[in-house]
Amino acid sequence: MQEIRYELTKTPKKKPAPGDSLPFGTIFTDHMFVMDYTEGTGWHDPRIVPYAPLQLDPAAMVLHYAQESFEGMKAYRTPDGSIQLFRPEKNAARFQSTHERMCMPVVPEQDFVEAIKALVKVEKDWVPTLPGESLYIRPFCIATEAHLGVKPSETYQFIIICCPVAAYYKTGLNPVKIYVEDKYVRATPGGTGYIKCGGNYAASLISQETAEKLGYSQTLWLDGVERKYVEEVGSMNCFFKIDGTVYTAPTVGTVLPGITRMSCIELLKKWGYTVSVDRLPIADVMKAGKAGKLEEVFGTGTAAVISPVGELRYEGEVARINGGKTGALTQKLYDTLTGIQWGKLPDDMGWTTKVC
Amino acid sequence: MQEIRYELTKTPKKKPAPGDSLPFGTIFTDHMFVMDYTEGTGWHDPRIVPYAPLQLDPAAMVLHYAQESFEGMKAYRTPDGSIQLFRPEKNAARFQSTHERMCMPVVPEQDFVEAIKALVKVEKDWVPTLPGESLYIRPFCIATEAHLGVKPSETYQFIIICCPVAAYYKTGLNPVKIYVEDKYVRATPGGTGYIKCGGNYAASLISQETAEKLGYSQTLWLDGVERKYVEEVGSMNCFFKIDGTVYTAPTVGTVLPGITRMSCIELLKKWGYTVSVDRLPIADVMKAGKAGKLEEVFGTGTAAVISPVGELRYEGEVARINGGKTGALTQKLYDTLTGIQWGKLPDDMGWTTKVC
Repeated sequence: MQEIRYELTKTPKKKPAPGDSLPFGTIFTDHMFVMDYTEGTGWHDPRIVPYAPLQLDPAAMVLHYAQESFEGMKAYRTPDGSIQLFRPEKNAARFQSTHERMCMPVVPEQDFVEAIKALVKVEKDWVPTLPGESLYIRPFCIATEAHLGVKPSETYQFIIICCPVAAYYKTGLNPVKIYVEDKYVRATPGGTGYIKCGGNYAASLISQETAEKLGYSQTLWLDGVERKYVEEVGSMNCFFKIDGTVYTAPTVGTVLPGITRMSCIELLKKWGYTVSVDRLPIADVMKAGKAGKLEEVFGTGTAAVISPVGELRYEGEVARINGGKTGALTQKLYDTLTGIQWGKLPDDMGWTTKVC
Repeated sequence: MQEIRYELTKTPKKKPAPGDSLPFGTIFTDHMFVMDYTEGTGWHDPRIVPYAPLQLDPAAMVLHYAQESFEGMKAYRTPDGSIQLFRPEKNAARFQSTHERMCMPVVPEQDFVEAIKALVKVEKDWVPTLPGESLYIRPFCIATEAHLGVKPSETYQFIIICCPVAAYYKTGLNPVKIYVEDKYVRATPGGTGYIKCGGNYAASLISQETAEKLGYSQTLWLDGVERKYVEEVGSMNCFFKIDGTVYTAPTVGTVLPGITRMSCIELLKKWGYTVSVDRLPIADVMKAGKAGKLEEVFGTGTAAVISPVGELRYEGEVARINGGKTGALTQKLYDTLTGIQWGKLPDDMGWTTKVC
């Protein structure tokens, strides 16, 4: 990557004060990182500039054919006031995998991480200080060529924006009720379920609406071929503790390889748990629920870190999990991961990267 | 719809002269139609304004979650110099169906058609005059709310842009070679295959690249569950004439209900052909090829109208169709449809709508 050019704002925004409400994803910092791609030239002109509207031709391909990718990650303020990232190289690798599937030019892993660090350094005073708060980081890439034919774009922009966000759980972990989707499908082998492209999310909105109408907060997705195996919950990966063993779906083309998921598997193995990364039928989950062996269920993702599930509804049948309370292992994973992320526990796994 | 506000350009572009090359989808007219949506207020401020870049917040949801829709249609110049559309109410209806699946607010059918007519009237001198040329019309809608959470946007823009395009076939119909995709999947039941959302197209690019590398010009998609039944070809619907009967895939959730497809079915029935709108295994197609009974294969879509297929390759096996030449029925459909669209044949079906 060329040297980053800095054009800093002359009119900084008023930062939220500690204790101010921080709604997720609507307050943006003063600057953004931008880098252009042109076929033949490659990636060029990396820059940190004031956060401002993008100028896009109405025929820009992202607006018609959704050639677009994104990542989600956070910067955490540690007790000594420094700022750190959590496994940013894993986001960089997944971003590359998304770009390969979407026929988009990859951003080198090192450039991806360097751009994030540079932007977070500039925005360091935007990283909030209260427990559980963080700076959410959104790298994304869009096809900008003005062309109505269906083909890969010849120009792109790679952009990073940031927003300070509140603690996901204000008063401790809070189990959610999950609706098992049996009509709509999120992903199928040969499709795009394993990458972070926009199309996956647009297609999922209708199921979220159905779940909410029924009083459930998220959707549990089944596989698209047999409609039989559990895959993801909302936009999180999903774990099931049944009779002592922990199950999670394999990421074989339809399930996003979550970085929190990966970290949970590594911690569970370190702690001596048997982790079965294999296809798990929803029927087995419901049966375990009836037999009192469905001990814990939780989602994993960057926003919530760990999201305990207290109830599952599938085809009219309901399974209550651990009396609707957060399980001990769910809590331990949450405490350990957030402890490492916010620098309150020693990072034995080598997962954090200091920014400043 | 409120009354359309007109803000016409003071610096019109130089229009291409008859005979100038008109590459598809890169030359845009002087104006665009824009209408805004805000939750609570509804659609408002319909306007025809100079074609210009859109100002989009970097967090606009279309750029992250691909909440976006589009349509494709054409305005045709008839021998008497007037301008007409082809079944625009069918595009309006499909646009609504896309919006319902994408959790986007629908544009009333009448407003959709009125907006297109108003824009084409303003751009009437951009409708080209040589045989086979037309004005391609691209209505589309994008989620504009600046918000990083996954949920339907609260604001949208409905936009229409136009570009003059050349005749698809310069020297008569020209059969293409098609690669039957057996790795990637376009659509699956419960997904978005039956609507025109951006995500479908981004996901398809990689297969198009594979086909081109192998010397084929487009991909034939199989169903996503059994990988057995023919569905679409590239971004067209697909027809097979086998032993006198014409087959095309049903639009039951995975296949786009094409307006050219619908018109072909109606014409074929009128002409006394047996049309089987049912699932057709690729194995039967290849077997018919070997037995000399695969008489004709063609794609249908707005851009090419009818695209004859001269060769199919599936798992290393090749079927040649009609000696690689355009079949008689394919040619008749093409002549009839283009005759009606360009006003050279009487419109017995009531398919055309005069603009001016």
